[in-house]
Amino acid sequence: MTLPLPDVQASSPDIKINLTRVGVNNVKKLVEVARPNGKRPVILISEFYIYVDLPSDIKGANLSRNFEAMYEVLEEALNMPIYEVEELCSEVARRVLQLHEYASTAEVGMKCEYMLKRRTPVMKISCQEPATIFAEAKAFRTDNNDVRIKKTIGAEIVGITTCPCAQELMRDKATEELTKRGVAKEDLVTFLDAVPLATHNQRGRGILSLEVKDDIKLPLGRIISIIEQSMSAKTYEILKRPDEAEVVATAHKKPMFVEDCVRAMAKRVVESFNELPDDSIVSIKQINEESIHQHDAVAERIASIGDLRRELKESDAGVA
Amino acid sequence: MTLPLPDVQASSPDIKINLTRVGVNNVKKLVEVARPNGKRPVILISEFYIYVDLPSDIKGANLSRNFEAMYEVLEEALNMPIYEVEELCSEVARRVLQLHEYASTAEVGMKCEYMLKRRTPVMKISCQEPATIFAEAKAFRTDNNDVRIKKTIGAEIVGITTCPCAQELMRDKATEELTKRGVAKEDLVTFLDAVPLATHNQRGRGILSLEVKDDIKLPLGRIISIIEQSMSAKTYEILKRPDEAEVVATAHKKPMFVEDCVRAMAKRVVESFNELPDDSIVSIKQINEESIHQHDAVAERIASIGDLRRELKESDAGVA
Amino acid sequence: MTLPLPDVQASSPDIKINLTRVGVNNVKKLVEVARPNGKRPVILISEFYIYVDLPSDIKGANLSRNFEAMYEVLEEALNMPIYEVEELCSEVARRVLQLHEYASTAEVGMKCEYMLKRRTPVMKISCQEPATIFAEAKAFRTDNNDVRIKKTIGAEIVGITTCPCAQELMRDKATEELTKRGVAKEDLVTFLDAVPLATHNQRGRGILSLEVKDDIKLPLGRIISIIEQSMSAKTYEILKRPDEAEVVATAHKKPMFVEDCVRAMAKRVVESFNELPDDSIVSIKQINEESIHQHDAVAERIASIGDLRRELKESDAGVA
Amino acid sequence: MTLPLPDVQASSPDIKINLTRVGVNNVKKLVEVARPNGKRPVILISEFYIYVDLPSDIKGANLSRNFEAMYEVLEEALNMPIYEVEELCSEVARRVLQLHEYASTAEVGMKCEYMLKRRTPVMKISCQEPATIFAEAKAFRTDNNDVRIKKTIGAEIVGITTCPCAQELMRDKATEELTKRGVAKEDLVTFLDAVPLATHNQRGRGILSLEVKDDIKLPLGRIISIIEQSMSAKTYEILKRPDEAEVVATAHKKPMFVEDCVRAMAKRVVESFNELPDDSIVSIKQINEESIHQHDAVAERIASIGDLRRELKESDAGVA
Repeated sequence: MTLPLPDVQASSPDIKINLTRVGVNNVKKLVEVARPNGKRPVILISEFYIYVDLPSDIKGANLSRNFEAMYEVLEEALNMPIYEVEELCSEVARRVLQLHEYASTAEVGMKCEYMLKRRTPVMKISCQEPATIFAEAKAFRTDNNDVRIKKTIGAEIVGITTCPCAQELMRDKATEELTKRGVAKEDLVTFLDAVPLATHNQRGRGILSLEVKDDIKLPLGRIISIIEQSMSAKTYEILKRPDEAEVVATAHKKPMFVEDCVRAMAKRVVESFNELPDDSIVSIKQINEESIHQHDAVAERIASIGDLRRELKESDAGVA
Repeated sequence: MTLPLPDVQASSPDIKINLTRVGVNNVKKLVEVARPNGKRPVILISEFYIYVDLPSDIKGANLSRNFEAMYEVLEEALNMPIYEVEELCSEVARRVLQLHEYASTAEVGMKCEYMLKRRTPVMKISCQEPATIFAEAKAFRTDNNDVRIKKTIGAEIVGITTCPCAQELMRDKATEELTKRGVAKEDLVTFLDAVPLATHNQRGRGILSLEVKDDIKLPLGRIISIIEQSMSAKTYEILKRPDEAEVVATAHKKPMFVEDCVRAMAKRVVESFNELPDDSIVSIKQINEESIHQHDAVAERIASIGDLRRELKESDAGVA
Repeated sequence: MTLPLPDVQASSPDIKINLTRVGVNNVKKLVEVARPNGKRPVILISEFYIYVDLPSDIKGANLSRNFEAMYEVLEEALNMPIYEVEELCSEVARRVLQLHEYASTAEVGMKCEYMLKRRTPVMKISCQEPATIFAEAKAFRTDNNDVRIKKTIGAEIVGITTCPCAQELMRDKATEELTKRGVAKEDLVTFLDAVPLATHNQRGRGILSLEVKDDIKLPLGRIISIIEQSMSAKTYEILKRPDEAEVVATAHKKPMFVEDCVRAMAKRVVESFNELPDDSIVSIKQINEESIHQHDAVAERIASIGDLRRELKESDAGVA
Repeated sequence: MTLPLPDVQASSPDIKINLTRVGVNNVKKLVEVARPNGKRPVILISEFYIYVDLPSDIKGANLSRNFEAMYEVLEEALNMPIYEVEELCSEVARRVLQLHEYASTAEVGMKCEYMLKRRTPVMKISCQEPATIFAEAKAFRTDNNDVRIKKTIGAEIVGITTCPCAQELMRDKATEELTKRGVAKEDLVTFLDAVPLATHNQRGRGILSLEVKDDIKLPLGRIISIIEQSMSAKTYEILKRPDEAEVVATAHKKPMFVEDCVRAMAKRVVESFNELPDDSIVSIKQINEESIHQHDAVAERIASIGDLRRELKESDAGVA
């Protein structure tokens, strides 16, 4: 039963202006995620957006006609493992562009919650830590009607950050107080060296993503690992006393500003992604939910990996 | 121009079942808030809900007819000072009940962001700290067609909490480490007494509200002050170095679990609201956004102030 | 390596006041969900809270000691099918109470997104619709140190609601306009009968949950089905033109206030859950995100199923 | 009392990498907003972000030192009327750049809720409608150590959108059904012309902002008015029956896709902002919270006003 129904979208609009993007946002789909070691796959609920551009002479993007096809792609793609969610976006973007013959670009993005497995540092208790992963693909129609794709993959991970500035202030306070109480300078040095001093600390959120051409592999695991290492310490859902002591000590021995976290991520990206071409784009952000303030502290760097490489080389040269 | 339009709401429904509440939520209104010392009033955007119950034989609560009246009340009430937002809710609830002659109860609630003024502890820099205040009134029609009202007023304030458990663990670790390094026991005691030891700390949120009969005054300022005092330290939007050192030291000298915060608030309510009758209801909650975990720690007590008084008296007697 | 670490939580607090609940909120865990017809299970990320009450003479709920056990229960329980998520909460609540020998109640709740499968009404295209499911269990220690449990299971589903009042107003307008244009009364009747008239319509959210004793089964599928049927029409992620026409027509032939939705759910619960004892608690809520307003319309009924049965019986008797 | 405290931020970092932006987000401040006709000003709670870039050789942006100054600017600026919130951001950005002598750019943004006054179309009842307004300023240090500023101001307004496609489908259905019932073709035309046919409709959100050089005035009122006119109808907090009928009829006589809304805004911007230079940037977005779907429909255009002018001119020429 296919009625000859009116196709309002295909008609010509009164106001002939191009649109940068038209589509759907907030689309939720089940995405199957492979797990290592023969474990059953996790099927996560992911949130998608799918856009195309629209030329000035078409009234509507006819999403009602093409949606079906978009979802077929998602359906087919359900067997891709998680470390390839950006492939899923690329594939959808490619097909969407084929279906919208009038469009010159397609953008497809997804994000979902993901569970990291960790063992606590001392007791080695296994626990799950929520993280967010996201991916995006932009498909461009080339002059010879081919399709060129840029893809992005990234993650957002929560960790602990301890403030270096307040810790120095507490060192000052401690020195003053202990000197007043007649502690010998030598003992003071021993003390301040042995005991991690108090400072404010808080939940920090590290966000790192990489944008490359379609044919380059981007291992999500490496991205997650870089973020995890670039804060003062990791979070754990369960911490028995020996573990809690260890995590607090670790965090206080490695105090970091938001600026430090971003720079640490930048350095690790350069070291870890040696294979990426210079024009790959790196986006790095750190947000600290300051415990002493109600606002957040933020630092960000967006650059080509080529620029980061050059800056690091100059930095090393300067140090030598 | 008043058309004789159909009144669907007033008709009889097919399914004759009573409704506990019918109304509107998420209604935003400007509410004028007086400020002390002749300062110009702040006009805050507040969010309201307004409900009535509905007997089984009426199809719809006819909100379209009565809304106007509800808003008139809000309009009139705009000149009430902030420490009387619960009066505003009472007045709206009373009138709403008058207008809905078929209803036996009306519930009106509001919440809004509010700005606290603080001075930093050392430099005395003036700053603004956001807080949330909320109020509610429930009006009941009595047998002789009078109206009885219960009203609630409360606040939610962000502060710093430092963990007592982790701090004890760090004391242990420090003792062990310093002993290993040959520090004399006497010096050790001096050290640990003089220097506030590290621990994890985080944003905490204290929430306190009181429910009383209509004729009792509930000073919002006292509620806010109790919450502020019942965490390890206050937040400040701007902290220059001497202030930052002071806040971090203060917080570390007063470590508190979520349980401690709730109990501290309970004690202060009993001490501060001596005039309240025993059947006044006290709701206390503390939520800590744990820096070492991704989940929150929560403690709560809901009780009559009479029960809290009795428990405190027994506690004091036990101590003696 | 088990250090003899200090146990701050077990010490006696300065302020000896009972706490209604102490625990953790916002805990995210993977929960495995069985799917019918031999399909691979979906593993969803669910959000939990776990609370116990705390007597006045214990400082902290020692969540750090007992957490491990809580998670073991969740781990074991991972093989329960989704229509038994309330069993999972019951089991956790029971064990948590065993572990906290000082506690008299335990509360465990979970909620997660869930995907409903639907076929569009005309083209029978398969699509996924997100829904929220939630469950809760409260365990009480009885006098003979046994445990009594009350459990709740529910769902929140989005659907379309069309306004009956505005549709009647449009009928009035249409009658006036067509009469003015000289349309015969007979033709007018034909027209108004044949064509679903315009009205405002919007996203509605139906929420239904049931609370029963531990030994009663509560099929989630039936709860979901009741909510789905009690709005003007269902949503579909993909609607080709014949389907879109059908959905819009269906929704406009069954206009419903928030009050109507709640009453329809109440009636269906009574009809569908014949086996439940009279003291089972039914919570029903409908929220309409009004397209003509920026606020929401809300209706709610909370009652024992016994009360709903009596009201419906009286209603039927009155009609007869 | 100025202690000689350590200045960790001013030290040289280990990893010498430039940062695109460092600063604070989620800063809440009271901002005073003038109201016409001698009414008392509204003081709204606004949310700010303030960033600077950071060269590779400085460890931290020393927000603790400069924050004070930032707030002084906000304090001074509190007397600016709302139609100049973008001036406030410009002024803060300029001063922040002066204070951070190492920085080459500063970015300051704010957003807040704002209340629009409206009268209902028939009964002329006065009501308040919440809207969101936002502004941003980017300050760049020029070669001769001057400062160049680009500023943005915009608004997000909720309105009603009705779907043109579904309405055509309903016209088809109506034609079919009425023909089947033997209605004469002539009467059919009369019917379908006189009565606005049903369609799905929903909350839409129109977002429009303009970016210009510092010396150009951007009247916020005009921006708000363009968004309001570019949806099917406006929302009202209170609608008595004659008003409700009018709003529903109006909305159904002007069905609009998300694409139509964006194009309507684009056309009105060109017509209304004749004075803007061609390189002013226009950002237009429409989001419809589809009642028949759980996802949102989105359309967007970002372009220079020069491009929009050219496209409209070509469009007009084509029509001629």
